[in-house]
Formats: sequence, C-alpha cells, structure tokens
Amino acid sequence: MKHYIGVDLGGTNIAAGIVTADGTLLHKDSVPTGSARGYESVLADMAELCRKIIADSGIDPASVVGIGVGSPGFCDEENGVIVFAGNLHFQDVPIRAILGQEMGLPVYLANDANCAALGESTAGAARDSSSSVTITLGTGVGSGIVIDKKILSGAFGGAGEIGHTSLIYGGALCTCGRLGCWEAYASATALIAQAKAAVEKHPESRILALADGDANRITGKVVFDAADEGDCVAETVIAEYLCYVAAGLANTINTLQPDTIVLGGGICAQGDRILAPIREEVVKEVFGGELKTKLVIATLGNDAGIIGAAMLALEEKQ
Amino acid sequence: MKHYIGVDLGGTNIAAGIVTADGTLLHKDSVPTGSARGYESVLADMAELCRKIIADSGIDPASVVGIGVGSPGFCDEENGVIVFAGNLHFQDVPIRAILGQEMGLPVYLANDANCAALGESTAGAARDSSSSVTITLGTGVGSGIVIDKKILSGAFGGAGEIGHTSLIYGGALCTCGRLGCWEAYASATALIAQAKAAVEKHPESRILALADGDANRITGKVVFDAADEGDCVAETVIAEYLCYVAAGLANTINTLQPDTIVLGGGICAQGDRILAPIREEVVKEVFGGELKTKLVIATLGNDAGIIGAAMLALEEKQ
Repeated sequence: MKHYIGVDLGGTNIAAGIVTADGTLLHKDSVPTGSARGYESVLADMAELCRKIIADSGIDPASVVGIGVGSPGFCDEENGVIVFAGNLHFQDVPIRAILGQEMGLPVYLANDANCAALGESTAGAARDSSSSVTITLGTGVGSGIVIDKKILSGAFGGAGEIGHTSLIYGGALCTCGRLGCWEAYASATALIAQAKAAVEKHPESRILALADGDANRITGKVVFDAADEGDCVAETVIAEYLCYVAAGLANTINTLQPDTIVLGGGICAQGDRILAPIREEVVKEVFGGELKTKLVIATLGNDAGIIGAAMLALEEKQ
Repeated sequence: MKHYIGVDLGGTNIAAGIVTADGTLLHKDSVPTGSARGYESVLADMAELCRKIIADSGIDPASVVGIGVGSPGFCDEENGVIVFAGNLHFQDVPIRAILGQEMGLPVYLANDANCAALGESTAGAARDSSSSVTITLGTGVGSGIVIDKKILSGAFGGAGEIGHTSLIYGGALCTCGRLGCWEAYASATALIAQAKAAVEKHPESRILALADGDANRITGKVVFDAADEGDCVAETVIAEYLCYVAAGLANTINTLQPDTIVLGGGICAQGDRILAPIREEVVKEVFGGELKTKLVIATLGNDAGIIGAAMLALEEKQ
C-alpha cells in the first residue's frame, strides 16, 4: 500500500501527516515553524518532521511515494517554488528542490487554502461532489476551488482568491489594499469589527459585558453568546454579517455553480444556526432564484490542509 | 472532412453555420426567430435553415455529424432541453429530441454566452489560451468560462453568470432582481443610464446635443463621440464606467485567473481606447498587484456563438 505525506506549512506550526490514497490520515505531528530563523532552518525541520512521522507511524518507509506541501501566499506550483508568503517572510523559496533532495522524494506544492479545499473534496464534506468550493471564514476569507476533483489554480497559480472579489466596490479597506472586498465584510475579523462598531453605539449590549467590558476582547464566539442571551444588538450584528457572507456565496454560485460549497473556520462551529439564515439569504441572491448548490460545514478541520496536500502527490503520480 | 452545424438561437434571429473541426465558419445564413408563434414553428424553421445551409454550402450532407445549439436562458445540457428562456417565452423545450429527430443528427445544447466563449476560445481572440473568460458588454453583461478548452457549465448548468455577482451589494437594481450586480453598472445599458443621469445635472453636455437634445436617444456611441469632442461630462461618465468594468474584471481574475479575458459587445469597437484605461484600473484592483491575465477584444463578433455552438458537437464526438 502506497502512502503520501501531506505538509501544512503554517505561520505558527508545521503540521505533517501520513495519508493513504483514499485520503485517510493515519498519523500526524507538528513542530513550531519559527520562520524568523530563515527558510533553510524551516525546511530542515520540515524534513525532520517527515522522517519522524514515517518512523512513528510504523509504515514501511519505502511505501511513501511523494510529499505534498500546502503553503500560504503565492506558489509557483509548476516549479515547486514559494514565490511570496508574507507571514513567513518567504520569497522565492525552492521547496521542491530542497525538500526533494533532502527526502529523496518528489515534492508537490500548492496554496494552503487550495489544499484545504482538495482535502474536503477528497475525504471531507464534499467527498461526494466532483466540484466544490471551500470557503474559510477566519482571520481572512480563504477559498479554494475544486473542479472534477482537481484544484483550479488558474493560468498562473493565483485563482481562488474569492475573498478578494468586491462585495461593496469602494467600501471597507481590505488587508489586500483594495476597498470593499468580501473578506472585509465576511471574515471573522470583520464580524468582530462590526460588533465593536455596534457596541460603541450600544454600550449596554451584552456583547461588551461578555467581553469583560473591553471591546478589544470581543471575539466571534462572544457575539454569538450574547445573541444566545437574547441581546438584540448581537442578533442584529450577526444577521447583517450573515447577509454579507451569503452575498459572497451567491456570487460564488453565480460564477461557478459548484455541486457543494463547504464552509470552514471557527464561526462554522455554530453549524445550522448560521447555515439556515445563510441559506435563506443565498436563495434570495442566487441567479434564477433556485439554490441547487449544497451548503455544508467543513468536517476535517485543520486536517483538511494535510490531507489535501498529500493528495497533490497522489494526483501527480496517477 | 467532417462538418458541424452551429445554431445561434437569438431573440430576433436564428443564425446557423457550417463549421469545420478547427472552428472555421464556411457558410452561414439566418431567419427571423418569430418566437411568438410557439416553439414548434421556431424549431421547424431552424431545421429548414440547417437543411438550407447544407445545400447552399455545397458540402456533402453526409459529412455533417452533429448540430450544436446556443440558446439564451437556462439550458439542461445533459438532456438537451431549454428549461427557460424568458425573451423567447420558451419553457421546457426538448430541442434535442425534436431537432434531432427532424435532422437525424445528434443535437447538443448550451447557453449562448457559453457558446460565444467557446467560439472565441476555439477560433477567436483566445484561441491560444487553454483558459479564458469571454465577457460581453451589451444590453446585459454576458459571460462564459472556458477551462482546458471546455465550457465550465457548473454542476447544474448555471455557471458563468458573472454579470450577476455583486459589485455594490445593495446598490443599483439589476434586471435579475438583485441589487448591485456588476451588470447594473457595467452593461451598455448601465453606461447609457449613467450618461442620462449626468446630463440631467449637466444639460450643457455635448452628450445631449449629439442625441438631438433627447436623453432617450443617448447610446453608448454618443457618449464616446461626445468625449471625442472633449466633453468633460462624457469623459467623466466613461472614466467611471470603465472603473466599474475593470472592478468586475478584477473580481473575475481573482476568482479564476484565466490566461485571457476576451471583451465583446458594441462598446468594444472602441478598442484600445477602452482597453488601456481598463487595464490600468484592473492592475490596481487585482490581488497581488500584478496583472498576468491578458485582456483582449473579441474578434469573431456574432459568429462566435455559431462557431462555439458547432464546437459542442465536436467536443461530444471526440
């Protein structure tokens, strides 16, 4: 039986796992990234982590046929080079060449959001769909497009930045520098900003109380908890936020009409409580007025990135 | 040598042509659609037109191996049924069954904007690109997505409605009923509406003079002609309009990053005069700040739909 290593290179940790051809994660481990040390040290630790998970999992080392790496930022997939990853301070890092030589295995590379999408498509919430889009509502709005079970990476490796399509052209400033991106309205960060603005007008809101009276301690969960207690301000903030989320999902459907949209990120722990109102809004916004695309919550959590990365190696070997 | 018939079913005319496997249009003809007569009459005329172009072109009738039809509205491609085409008053028209039986040939069906995109991809401005998006700035904003030289029709045949993604969520009313769609800002119809609003404030504008003093006679060309004469109001209207166009193109690139975007529709007769400022704006709006996707003007005009429709039959036969 062949095995594939998937590596999820994050700003905080490097996570890696042993994955089978059907996307089952057999064993995983992680180490701190420590990117300030420079890429040579990071890649040396990554190779060490790969060796460790092979040893600890007890599989035959010869059964490992390839390594896939999911990296933040912009990746040159064809040449296996991390062109630019701001939060790692990486620029033109030839990960395929270095890790490949170190491990004696072929190394494949893709953007981390795309890997997460491929993971959910292989073994997660979209495993029964040939086309899916995975949207992660986190610090930003990440997205990855899978068509015919393959990542749509675009002509130059930059597709799938749906978070950076305009929701309100000329509106709120996005982290990318553009005004009015979906991310600036639908990320967890945006929800928190929207809640902060609301409590400035309504300091009596339970949101502030649940954040110990400190607006800087408002989290997504705090807003939902306040709404649970019947706080009108929190309910209004959430309703408006979910409209923003839904509008971007409708845009995604009108453009790509995937079989399934998978929603991930911490906010999605709310499950049906957010899915039901989102669905109600998407139906209003989708072209033709009929919602055929399934909206579901991600099931793999952080493992999606590892599994999807491993599948890069599988795809290439077939 | 095999031949393919492409049919472009429009609100006004049915156009059909004889096309070779490489997308060369050998001969074409058209008849009025007259959809008010009901679909049976329309399909009978369509069959007659197919027989006529075979006869008039002088090809061996036995060399025709299939018919592709591009239809407005929503098509069930798998079953060859026009599910709904508002401007034809068609609902659940089994065109494959009827035309196929009448002609004794396999019949394939796709949305007309998708056919135009496939035509430009096969023999037009995107013939050297494996992935392209064709955007038509006309009465509405039509779009078709081609990936790996194939139409991306979505899981349920409804992909490629980029004109109905929000540019300004909650903004101007779109023909689809949604508020703030790209189409409501970037169609030729929108340009005319923007010009009308401008001349209300500035009746001294040359726009009104060139429209014989009647705001209802303003066309896209009138606005450009007024700008040619140095009219500041017209220049401002056009500059703002092109920003709207560019923002939607940036959204398209951030989502799909095709190799090429093909721009069609009457306004595109302006060529570089609109392409240069559009490109300048897209660079500002595109994720990562580097525009790699080529922006070009459509080259096939109305023939794109015929050629692309014919290619549906080619795709299926391969």
